Parts: sequence; C-alpha cells; structure tokens
Amino acid sequence: MQIDGHAYRTIWVDPEDRWSVRIIDQTRLPWALEILRLTTLDDAAHAIRAMLVRGAPLIGATAAYGLCLALRADPADAALERAATTLAATRPTAVNLRWALDRMLARLRPAAPGARLAGAYDEAARIADEDAAQNAAIGRHGQTLIETAAARPGRPAGPVNVLTHCNAGWLATVDWGTAIAPIYAAHNAGIPVHVWVDETRPRNQGASLTAYELGKHGVPHTVIADNAGGHLMQHGQVDLAIVGADRVTRTGDVANKIGTYLKALAAKDTGVPFWVAVPSSTIDWTLADGVAEIPIEERAAAEVATLTGRTEAGAVMTIRVIPDGSAAANPAFDVTPARLVTGLITERGRCPATAEGLLGLFPERR
Amino acid sequence: MQIDGHAYRTIWVDPEDRWSVRIIDQTRLPWALEILRLTTLDDAAHAIRAMLVRGAPLIGATAAYGLCLALRADPADAALERAATTLAATRPTAVNLRWALDRMLARLRPAAPGARLAGAYDEAARIADEDAAQNAAIGRHGQTLIETAAARPGRPAGPVNVLTHCNAGWLATVDWGTAIAPIYAAHNAGIPVHVWVDETRPRNQGASLTAYELGKHGVPHTVIADNAGGHLMQHGQVDLAIVGADRVTRTGDVANKIGTYLKALAAKDTGVPFWVAVPSSTIDWTLADGVAEIPIEERAAAEVATLTGRTEAGAVMTIRVIPDGSAAANPAFDVTPARLVTGLITERGRCPATAEGLLGLFPERR
Repeated sequence: MQIDGHAYRTIWVDPEDRWSVRIIDQTRLPWALEILRLTTLDDAAHAIRAMLVRGAPLIGATAAYGLCLALRADPADAALERAATTLAATRPTAVNLRWALDRMLARLRPAAPGARLAGAYDEAARIADEDAAQNAAIGRHGQTLIETAAARPGRPAGPVNVLTHCNAGWLATVDWGTAIAPIYAAHNAGIPVHVWVDETRPRNQGASLTAYELGKHGVPHTVIADNAGGHLMQHGQVDLAIVGADRVTRTGDVANKIGTYLKALAAKDTGVPFWVAVPSSTIDWTLADGVAEIPIEERAAAEVATLTGRTEAGAVMTIRVIPDGSAAANPAFDVTPARLVTGLITERGRCPATAEGLLGLFPERR
Repeated sequence: MQIDGHAYRTIWVDPEDRWSVRIIDQTRLPWALEILRLTTLDDAAHAIRAMLVRGAPLIGATAAYGLCLALRADPADAALERAATTLAATRPTAVNLRWALDRMLARLRPAAPGARLAGAYDEAARIADEDAAQNAAIGRHGQTLIETAAARPGRPAGPVNVLTHCNAGWLATVDWGTAIAPIYAAHNAGIPVHVWVDETRPRNQGASLTAYELGKHGVPHTVIADNAGGHLMQHGQVDLAIVGADRVTRTGDVANKIGTYLKALAAKDTGVPFWVAVPSSTIDWTLADGVAEIPIEERAAAEVATLTGRTEAGAVMTIRVIPDGSAAANPAFDVTPARLVTGLITERGRCPATAEGLLGLFPERR
C-alpha cells in the first residue's frame, strides 16, 4: 500500500544486490521508516524473533526468504534442514511459519543442491505474490460487509465505523493486510469508513502500526485504549469489528492477539458483527478445540513493564510504567471461541465460523 | 495502610499549620511519594480536576475539605454556594462528590457564618472517618469470599488469585480501599492471596497505583495488560474478580473505569465470580438504567496519545505513543449491566446486584 505516495510491500528482493532481502523495520515505526537488508539466515531468524517483521503472513514470507538466504551459504541437505529448524523455532504460535517452511521444503528437498537456490527464490516469490493476491481477495469479500453496514436502514449518517485490534493491516502481510484489506477496499471504492484502532498493549501494534498505515493511506481513524471498545459498542458507535488471526481451528476458534476474546464478547453482547479475516494458510485443519489445544506464547514481562515512544524533544525512548519490585505477566495471544465469531472472511469468500462453514469453502478438506 | 512501614491515610488535616489539608500527589506515584499542602478552594478543586486525588470516596472527602478551605477565606452564604458549585463541577461522573457536598451543605447552610468553619472541619472529618470505617467493613465482608475461594474443593494449591481493574485500593479512598479492602483483610489474616493487576490504560492507575500500594503493603501481585484478563480466566488462573465503582444504580448497574465491562463479560463467560465493592454513598438511588442514564466523562485525547513513566536514567518522562496526525478518543468509564455482576460488597454486607438485593441491605430506601 501507500506510504507518502509511494507503493510498498513489506518484503522484497533486490536481485542487483546479491539477491538480498529488504524489510521495513517495524519496531522503528511509526517514528522512522527504516529499510533493513537481510543477507543471512541469522538476519532472517532475528527479524522474526525480535519482531522486526510480525503478522502471521509476513512471518511466513520472511521464513521462506530466510531459507533462500541460508541456501546462499550452503545448499546441502543438512544445511537446509538446519535452517528450517532454526526458522521454525523463532515464534511458536504462528501456523503460517510452519506452513511456509513446509511448502519450501516440499519443493527444495527433491531438488539437487545446485538447483535449490533458484527454486527457493522462485517459491518464496510465489508465497509473497500469493499472499498479496489472497489479501486483495479478502478485501473484496469483506468490502461487501462494509457496504451492507453503510446501507443498513435507519442507520445514522456518517462513515461506517469499524473496530480492529492489533495490526492485521498490510504491514502484517506482504500487502493489503487481512482485517484491514476490506477497509482499504471500501475506502478506495469511495465508501466513507472510519476505524477505531485498539492500541493493543503490551506491544501497541494498533497505536503504532495500524494507526500509521491507515494515516499514510489516508483512512480516517481514531486510536482508543483497549478498554474502550465495549463502551463504544454499547453506544452504537461500532458498526462491525474485523480482526485478523494467528491461527484458526477447523471448527472456527480464533487465536489472535491478546484481548481479541474480550472484544468478541462485547460484540456478541451488543449485537455488533464480529468478523475474522484470514488467508486459508492460517487455518489449522488438525485442531478442533482452540482454547485447549493452541499453545499461547508467553512473552517477556518487560513488554508489559515498559513502553516505547517519542519524547517531546523528539527522542525515541523506553520508559518503565510499573513500580520497581512489581512482577508482570505477558500472555501474547488468546483464543476466541467460534460461538463469538459472526464469520470468517477468506480469499475464497465468507463463511460461518464452524467446521461445516469452513468445509463449504474448502471442500477439498472433507 | 502502610508505606515503608508507616501508616498513612490519603487525606488529613494539620491543625498546627493553619488547618491546611495534606494529600499524597497521586500523579507522582509510583516514582515519588510527595505530600502536598492544600490551603485554598482552588487548591482543592485543582487536586480533584487534575486527579492529584482520584477515586470516588477520596474525591468526596477532598471536596468536603475543599469547602472547609473555602470557608476560611469567606464563610458567607454566597461564598459557600459558589464553592460548592465550583467543587461539584470538577468531575462529572463521581456521585460521591455530589453526595459529600450535599452533606456538608446540609450541615453548613443552617449555621451562622461565624460558626461554619468549625462545623465544616468536623463534618469533613466525619466523612473521612466514616469512609475508612465503611471500607474496613467492606474488607471484612469481602474477606469471606476469598476464604471461600481458598477452601473450594478440588482447587489446586497456591494463593487465591483475585483480578482487579484500575485502583480501588486505599489510595482511592481515605483508607483500606473498596475492591482491595477484602484483599488486605485476607492478607492480614494470613490467607495466601495473589492479585492480577490490570494496568488500566489510559491513565494506568492499576500499574502505577494498585501495584504500588500492594507492593508497599507486601501483597503478592502481577501486573498484566488490560487485554490479558479474559485469557487468564479461560485458563482457571482467576478465582474471583473484585472491582470498585464510581456509581451503582439502584438496579445494580455499575459505572466504573473504562474496561470493567469487558472483564465482567469474560468473568460471566468463564464462570468466574465478579464482585463489585462499594460504600453505600456510591449507590445512586435515582437511576435504574446505567447504560442509558449515567453520563460518561470523555477525557483528554492526550491521555491515550501519551504515557508517563521512568527512563532507565531515572527521569520521569512523558512519551507519545500514537503517530502524528492520528486522533484519539478517551471515554473514561463504562457501565457494566447488573446481569454480569455476581454481587455487591457494601459496608452492610453482600447482596445480589439487583434492586431487591440492594433494598434488602438498605430497607430504608424502600
């Protein structure tokens, strides 16, 4: 999408610079737009682990390119397997990471070591291009929901108000985003839309990334504390909620950024439609009970104890916000049971968040 | 309660210093314990408006002492009424503010101007002492809930885990607190208790005040992002939730810090008892529908756009956490419908969050 009038993706290859990989350092946003150059497996693993890139689809694409970079150093079988193991261990929750690596390995294992490099870059580019195309399709299928909300009889005048949590925008994917793709599609089609952006503590991906990308693309938006969404829904100020997901079970349970479950409860309680936008690679067809079966990453307490932002003098600084001696806990995701989800928006269309609903869109999984 | 081994209240009078009023500047916590001296009506109004003092009961006591300070300058009828009007306008949501002023006016209006000052200090001291005594009673009535949770058959070993939102501890009252009073009572009685402290964005009263006062009193606690409570409840890590309230309708609807509604929804969904601890002065007997009737204060967007904390170098600094050009909204409270509340803990005992339940404890309101 657009930053200051220029079109970007979140990851791309520079063939003229020894096929190195470029990413946007998302930990520097929204204060600085810094493009990083990845040249080794370790660069790619670090980028995922330290969340320079984040968002399930972008993590998958980065892992794919990480294998490419590993093969530049050593295309042999053992190195390929070691690289895949290293990359798979960088983040435990995102199923796309495993999916992208499996897809790369399926293509690369049968190939002779000498033929692997070209195949790897080709497959990684396909993963990236397919992600962008899938998300554009999610945008089209979700745009209908925003159009429907805008046309609801008796609705007060004004833009359609969409609430979103965390960052499932183009910065979380290769392009377009998942939850935000319908918003971009509607906005680009001239439908007035306004986004309530949950700040999404502890890492504030909403306040720093979603607000940034919406602002740069020109979409009206307002940042709110994570506590505020229920109140806004109670008072008719949210037409629908759209969030992304890190993993969806075959029964429609949704693992997404911590706090998603709370917003889904409020949406259910107030009759606000709650949609989850996911590329099909996010669906884990092996799982039936999200709350019991999806492992939840416990991240560093420091993410809760501290916050990074910009001082009045312009310096980017990290401050501590809990007393010395107080402990902090940091479960990074939660699971929203399917019963709270109005439906899923995938690249193939929309469906109820049920096993039957998903199989209707993906009959090959029957 | 205790700070570094010394017993404090949140507000007290120094008769040897021209009857000035002392408060703890709660905007400086947890980084500095600074005692301020209030000598004028404007000092008191500013202390409430700028949230140097906060919490419904402490706001009421500060307003009462604010009238005392006003009468020092001018005890005439007109000045008394002007002072009450000024103080009533400082915070729109807290019913205790109006309650304390009405009680002071009821005593002071009939008195001759020359007799008002002594009467005012006497009445303000009664308000403060009664608040401390009421909260101690709330602590005793709530302690039973923690004892019951500890004795629940089949419960895993370990402390009773109580989740709380915002600060309804002794810092929000004159002493003991409301939601935290049962925790202090249980802790002082030797029952192992651990508190999940919601950080409570945007003003972070949980992270900065609740964590501070629990730590200084020696109560084990862990700060969590406001997003995390639902996940902890889903996984059996919360035995019960106790929160305070800024206003409770006669039907049991609860206006409290923004985000309370979301936690109550999660508690209902997961079978976790959700209790609201309030002195009876917080009950607004004139209201029946909290969501429709309780005005919600919209505070400054800057509270969402910025955060204050301590840098590694030790300086207390405010940082911006949303991009330039992004808007922010800041509804400060929300209303939790009575159907989500397990019960109320008052100074007279516990009751269901219903009109009948409240009238059972307060039959004089029939």
